Amino acid sequence: MKNPILVPELRDLLKRKRFTILRSFLAEQHEKEIAEYLSLLNPEEIWKILNLVDAYRRSEIFTYMDMDVQVSLVSGPLKKNITELLMQMSHDDRADLFQHLEKDVADKLLLLLPLDERYDIINLTSYSEGTAGAIMTTDFATLVEDDAVEKSIKKIRREAPSRETIYYIYVTDQHEKLIGFVSLRNLILARPKQKISSIMKSEVIYAYVDDDQEKAAQLIEEYDLIALPIVDYNNRLCGIITHDDAIDIIREEQTEDMERLMAISGRVEEKTYLDVPAFVHFKKRVFWVVTLGILSLLTGLIIQGFQDTLESLIILTFYMPMLTATGGNTGSQAATVVLRALALNELNPTDILKVIWKELSISILLALCLGAITYFRVLLMSGNTTIPPILTLQSIATVIGIALTIQVVWSTLFGAVIPIIATRLKLDPAVVSSPALTTFVDMGGIAIYFTTAKIVLGI
Amino acid sequence: MKNPILVPELRDLLKRKRFTILRSFLAEQHEKEIAEYLSLLNPEEIWKILNLVDAYRRSEIFTYMDMDVQVSLVSGPLKKNITELLMQMSHDDRADLFQHLEKDVADKLLLLLPLDERYDIINLTSYSEGTAGAIMTTDFATLVEDDAVEKSIKKIRREAPSRETIYYIYVTDQHEKLIGFVSLRNLILARPKQKISSIMKSEVIYAYVDDDQEKAAQLIEEYDLIALPIVDYNNRLCGIITHDDAIDIIREEQTEDMERLMAISGRVEEKTYLDVPAFVHFKKRVFWVVTLGILSLLTGLIIQGFQDTLESLIILTFYMPMLTATGGNTGSQAATVVLRALALNELNPTDILKVIWKELSISILLALCLGAITYFRVLLMSGNTTIPPILTLQSIATVIGIALTIQVVWSTLFGAVIPIIATRLKLDPAVVSSPALTTFVDMGGIAIYFTTAKIVLGI
Repeated sequence: MKNPILVPELRDLLKRKRFTILRSFLAEQHEKEIAEYLSLLNPEEIWKILNLVDAYRRSEIFTYMDMDVQVSLVSGPLKKNITELLMQMSHDDRADLFQHLEKDVADKLLLLLPLDERYDIINLTSYSEGTAGAIMTTDFATLVEDDAVEKSIKKIRREAPSRETIYYIYVTDQHEKLIGFVSLRNLILARPKQKISSIMKSEVIYAYVDDDQEKAAQLIEEYDLIALPIVDYNNRLCGIITHDDAIDIIREEQTEDMERLMAISGRVEEKTYLDVPAFVHFKKRVFWVVTLGILSLLTGLIIQGFQDTLESLIILTFYMPMLTATGGNTGSQAATVVLRALALNELNPTDILKVIWKELSISILLALCLGAITYFRVLLMSGNTTIPPILTLQSIATVIGIALTIQVVWSTLFGAVIPIIATRLKLDPAVVSSPALTTFVDMGGIAIYFTTAKIVLGI
Repeated sequence: MKNPILVPELRDLLKRKRFTILRSFLAEQHEKEIAEYLSLLNPEEIWKILNLVDAYRRSEIFTYMDMDVQVSLVSGPLKKNITELLMQMSHDDRADLFQHLEKDVADKLLLLLPLDERYDIINLTSYSEGTAGAIMTTDFATLVEDDAVEKSIKKIRREAPSRETIYYIYVTDQHEKLIGFVSLRNLILARPKQKISSIMKSEVIYAYVDDDQEKAAQLIEEYDLIALPIVDYNNRLCGIITHDDAIDIIREEQTEDMERLMAISGRVEEKTYLDVPAFVHFKKRVFWVVTLGILSLLTGLIIQGFQDTLESLIILTFYMPMLTATGGNTGSQAATVVLRALALNELNPTDILKVIWKELSISILLALCLGAITYFRVLLMSGNTTIPPILTLQSIATVIGIALTIQVVWSTLFGAVIPIIATRLKLDPAVVSSPALTTFVDMGGIAIYFTTAKIVLGI
């Protein structure tokens, strides 16, 4: 955010109608920065300044503003240039704006637009959220395979101002079916008389309108694309998704992955952390916290089952937090690494045996370290604790060391395997979240702990 | 990965020298797919097939192969076309390859190249890992501001085959200083006689060679760029980073963030999960697991301090796992949300009071839910536990309910504030990981629990 000291100056210049100074200020700044300054003014003031720049920059600045500012700018009484602005906007950004408008405002604005643009908005807003169709834009550039390069370049030059990108150009037949692809690079390198059919690539990477947006982003990432064509089931070209949309999708999925790893449910909010009301945050967190809280009462029931062991050997309680915490940590680490490998397609769910083998090796190394440290720690630290005369501190240290070793191996394997099983069964990813794992690992750990004590010490 | 059934066929065609069939197979596939097929053959076979395609496609296919395959292809006895391949590769991919070669192989290959290309490799491999300089490429396109558009287009056409991108073109002065920027879109839209200086934008977004690669990726993301120019401290243009590199950086940082959230230390590995040896996985996990294991022994010491309370009221042990698990969960949720908001620049470290206020509201809602559920749960579930005659089950339920309420509020605030403080103090992000938080929250929770019991029940 820029220094808001400029805002009073902007206001002052507006009031005194010093439009020349304002225009030169606007000419020197990047559209994104202008959008940030303007967002600090009221809608009337913003419109006055927007009307000082040409249509192309106006739509650029407008699009860089936050959605709530955009909505307030078009929701008031109709402004000069509003039709032009809506005509100039990228089709995907425009559809996104209409998704956020009150129904009566949207209807009023639709009537300002020619029929084909109106149809475009209705079409683009009809795809369900999360699909490639819902984020694609329809302002792509196309060519015809029988045209010569010379004629095609003229067509692209003519259309360029209203296209999202002209660097990737698609070749369609008379039924709008996608049959090829030409990059602007190859187009300007070709000889003027060459046919498009002789320079186009017919092996085109594409996605379907119903595909998950994440799949589209992955294709853009894997093939290093500037844009990805989106087709319907008749192979008709419906839109494109550009490289910058792919980054937005990747960021959104990333936030979702982290939230699920921490058992936060629901979709990622469009608003920022501070703008989301406390009650909405609460709703996203409460389900899993309460569910896991209730589940962890079962751990209490397991302890209750070993009440006699516990009463005769209260020292066991002192090492319970270490045992459960360590199990939770090793399990969560393994789950994180495996989840990430699954998300990046480094692992298939069929690799489960390889994963078990890998994690078994890792967990044995971890278990030996931790078991040994704990054994000596108990010997050194618990010298002044009262223990029943029939037992030695050494035997108790052995019990705790062995229990921890088993706990580390089991929790690591459990943490590694559960994400794979969850993926196979297509379960809610939150069930493999770190909190959920920790809860289950706690139960197992307590059972292992007291069972080991019973067997080794015979109490 | 493609169906490996094709591999024997490829081998057979090679052996029978059916090059026409092979060439037509190669012509129909995307370079990335060819790279995947070829990776299943041995280096000799791969070279034979690579030599069937033109220099441009050869370098594309080569670059799509995994790094270890690339290394094995250039490490054997010198092959025909190897110099041409190295000359044709993108400069950033080439520098990356040289980073992975044995020193003697690298030296041998360097001698095959002209002096300027050799210097380019040595220069690009000299930047330290994680900086913009280390991932930029030097094969960018430049123009001169006094040239006419017509002449400039000719220059770009001539240079295009050896440039990483020609969609963003940079204008430099006679000292190679970056003074402006022209997109290919604007270049082909301009009149042939116009000077570059009249169409270039002099407000250029750029980063420095020493900047963190993440900063470069963020600029590309925020400004929706296809490429970002990288300059040295004399403002000389040294390289560019392209949109596809930005996606790679974002993925890498994302993996790092998730690993740190789970207290896995060290840099993100280049190899996949299964390719990383167990001992390397172990090393990345052991430090924090052991550190936190030792710290959680302190929680045991706190319990030991309340040994008398515990011995007279063993029922308190049964609710310990629920109390610590819930504290860990609410603390981790808050930390995740705040860490994410910090990473996306939605929050500044100065917003700490706003965050505390927001999390206080959320945690009170969570605490009331959880406190009430637990209170009734204790009443219903622990009917058959023996408790000292001076106490009622109701008073014990009250203690547990109150302790849980305090624990939820404190752990949520702690989880939310620690990432902000860590950012301010520039601490290792792993100290705010979910496992670390859980360990500290456990200690506080146990102290709250027994103190509440002592005060309310007077034991």
